[in-house]
Amino acid sequence: MGARIGVGLLGLGTVGGGVASILLCPDERHPLVHDLNLVSVAVRDLTRSRAVQLPDDILTSDPAEVVNNPEVDVVVEVIGGLEPARTLILQAIHAGKSVVTANKAVIARHGQEIAEAAAKAGVYVLIEAAVGGGIPIIEPLKQSLGGNRINRVSGIINGTTNYILTRMAEEGVAYDVVLSDAKELGYAEADPAADVDGLDAADKIAILASLAFGGSVDRSAIPTQGISQLEGVDVQYASQLGYGVKLLAVAERMAETGEPLPLSLRVQPTLVPKDHPLAGVNGVNNAILVEGDPIGRVMFYGPGAGAGPTSSAVVADILNIAGIRKASEGASGQVDPLLAAGSWRQCVLVDAGQIRQRHYVRFNTKDAPGVIGKIGECFGERGVSIQSIVQLNASSAGAEIIVITHEVREQQMNDALRAIQALSEVSGLAAHHGCL
Amino acid sequence: MGARIGVGLLGLGTVGGGVASILLCPDERHPLVHDLNLVSVAVRDLTRSRAVQLPDDILTSDPAEVVNNPEVDVVVEVIGGLEPARTLILQAIHAGKSVVTANKAVIARHGQEIAEAAAKAGVYVLIEAAVGGGIPIIEPLKQSLGGNRINRVSGIINGTTNYILTRMAEEGVAYDVVLSDAKELGYAEADPAADVDGLDAADKIAILASLAFGGSVDRSAIPTQGISQLEGVDVQYASQLGYGVKLLAVAERMAETGEPLPLSLRVQPTLVPKDHPLAGVNGVNNAILVEGDPIGRVMFYGPGAGAGPTSSAVVADILNIAGIRKASEGASGQVDPLLAAGSWRQCVLVDAGQIRQRHYVRFNTKDAPGVIGKIGECFGERGVSIQSIVQLNASSAGAEIIVITHEVREQQMNDALRAIQALSEVSGLAAHHGCL
Repeated sequence: MGARIGVGLLGLGTVGGGVASILLCPDERHPLVHDLNLVSVAVRDLTRSRAVQLPDDILTSDPAEVVNNPEVDVVVEVIGGLEPARTLILQAIHAGKSVVTANKAVIARHGQEIAEAAAKAGVYVLIEAAVGGGIPIIEPLKQSLGGNRINRVSGIINGTTNYILTRMAEEGVAYDVVLSDAKELGYAEADPAADVDGLDAADKIAILASLAFGGSVDRSAIPTQGISQLEGVDVQYASQLGYGVKLLAVAERMAETGEPLPLSLRVQPTLVPKDHPLAGVNGVNNAILVEGDPIGRVMFYGPGAGAGPTSSAVVADILNIAGIRKASEGASGQVDPLLAAGSWRQCVLVDAGQIRQRHYVRFNTKDAPGVIGKIGECFGERGVSIQSIVQLNASSAGAEIIVITHEVREQQMNDALRAIQALSEVSGLAAHHGCL
Repeated sequence: MGARIGVGLLGLGTVGGGVASILLCPDERHPLVHDLNLVSVAVRDLTRSRAVQLPDDILTSDPAEVVNNPEVDVVVEVIGGLEPARTLILQAIHAGKSVVTANKAVIARHGQEIAEAAAKAGVYVLIEAAVGGGIPIIEPLKQSLGGNRINRVSGIINGTTNYILTRMAEEGVAYDVVLSDAKELGYAEADPAADVDGLDAADKIAILASLAFGGSVDRSAIPTQGISQLEGVDVQYASQLGYGVKLLAVAERMAETGEPLPLSLRVQPTLVPKDHPLAGVNGVNNAILVEGDPIGRVMFYGPGAGAGPTSSAVVADILNIAGIRKASEGASGQVDPLLAAGSWRQCVLVDAGQIRQRHYVRFNTKDAPGVIGKIGECFGERGVSIQSIVQLNASSAGAEIIVITHEVREQQMNDALRAIQALSEVSGLAAHHGCL
């Protein structure tokens, strides 16, 4: 056993408690866990009873005590939220400590500021737990796939919405009913907006993109559509046509090269063919697909949230810092550029109209005869090639027409949709989603 | 850009050529790839024409020139086979160079000798490409999952056999027919024994087990059954019962703790329920499932072989060494214990009779009436609990009876099978596989 690494915890909720449990029970884990020494823990309420038993003298209600404790080498931030988390992370960096955080909101918005401060201080800020819970995805993007030219990162990176979509598909239950179940089961928060509106997935895809393509992206410019408007009938129709519906986050390269490199990022409900690897990802699981040259396509799958998986990722980051400290003791002070993962280029999001993808749309029509032909004509005139057009639920009151297109630019698609909505036979565009 | 890292290549076949291509075209990859300098390449035949263009003066037909070249910091061994690969790896280590290898046969058999030499010399031997082609699995086991107590590693880790099994299942084609197709397509070698007899998978699960559990295992003691005896009819019956058949490699912990830690390893055709994440892994793809505490279950999926994926993994390892060299310049010389991944305990394989799992068996019976009852009795008397027993293809000539058991010790199962085969109504045990 070597010199011990002092760990300070900011927050002792479910994730913080999970991390503390691992550090206090190192047996049967990697021997380096024995070298991690939990020296200080900041909590909001000192008097609250907790699942994990900690010595009284390491608890404090003042996070500054953790950040400034000279025995703390690594500060673990698991408070969540933007502030005071951001300020505490920066204070820890300025105090010369490496930081481990599970805070996707802070990293997606202030990642560049934090990375610059860390580079200046020669410390690491590791974020494995910020995306995909326990699934190793940050590290592979930084290190194991570093020899690749990454072309696309896509995936199911929000467990709450995937749980809801899975139950809608399997049981035919309506969105509202599943959401209230999910709240009861603790899979959705009382205010579920960050999850169901796709904001959490947008935070995460911003982080994945910055690692995959080497530069930060403008979080606020990511087109984001959640699942709160998704109707059960579209989940059923998609299933009949051989698709599952997933809330997909996508980041893809829009040019071979470029400075800044043009990227397309988006979050939206998307039809996934049932034989696609992402289609089988159900419940609160997450999966991330990385496509690159020469690797081809690899997928990382597992539990996307929860105390256990998330604390596994946090401890992995602490271990990485402990491991590299051993190798760099007495060194001249450079950081490992792979682990540090600073940005190395500029990236820019293309205008949403440039995004190319397949689309699923559902129209309500007043009467069926001839309307399929007219819709087909509107698409054809604007260069939108159709894979399938199906009429469902026809009655004297009207019909529903489902169209799945081939890959097309968003701009063309929107032009065609405007023309179709102007048809007298079409009473409305009832649904519009992406399709893999 | 910092000091450049000299790379020496032993072998310029498909993988070596792929590695050279990446090093010669660093654009759009991690900027650290620019720092990798290919300085020497050993090939068997200097006159052969190659897909990748290299300056003449870096080619040599003498591998010792690569290993002893003072400008080479990292030696990449992609010759394959046991010798001279093992000797060259040891020579490189003794010369103070880190080694990257894709050679599962050498690592499964001589991994401990090599690791000890590397530890003594203070260098790294990295093996990401040895298992799962391009899929990051070695690194996650060493680093990203280091906070876990790993309980089980299982997966589909041979692409050739998975290609054969996929085609048998999808097209109902016989083993021999698919195998000869696979040879023509280059998915199987002229002598396919290492793949179809499960030896390659056994090498790989030995390597995964040593990383997951921290100690090397006796490669020669792994119970290994390949797919060459697998009959198409069992693939069809399995499918009717809701299972796919996969060549599964499994390593699992047989006790909470222990010194040595008892493990069970095995390679065998195994029925996988169709809703299991491994069931959807088709063609030449690989997937590895890791189960641990507190992570739960994560899966890594992707192309298990091929020049592109394998060279992606090799370059990742070179990058890791380059990255840590930057962080440890001028340091006192310890290695990063996570990256070095030396063994930290003794492991021992339990007697095969101790293995607990579910079983699939098919009996040929002479006449049907009453025989199901007798078979059920033989199982029941020996404590083997049955999940399903189905009679198929009954005719005057006899019938086939398929049994799927609950989890049972191998010993009990074998006792029951002996008793059943002694029944006068049973003409033979036609198939016996594992079942998840």
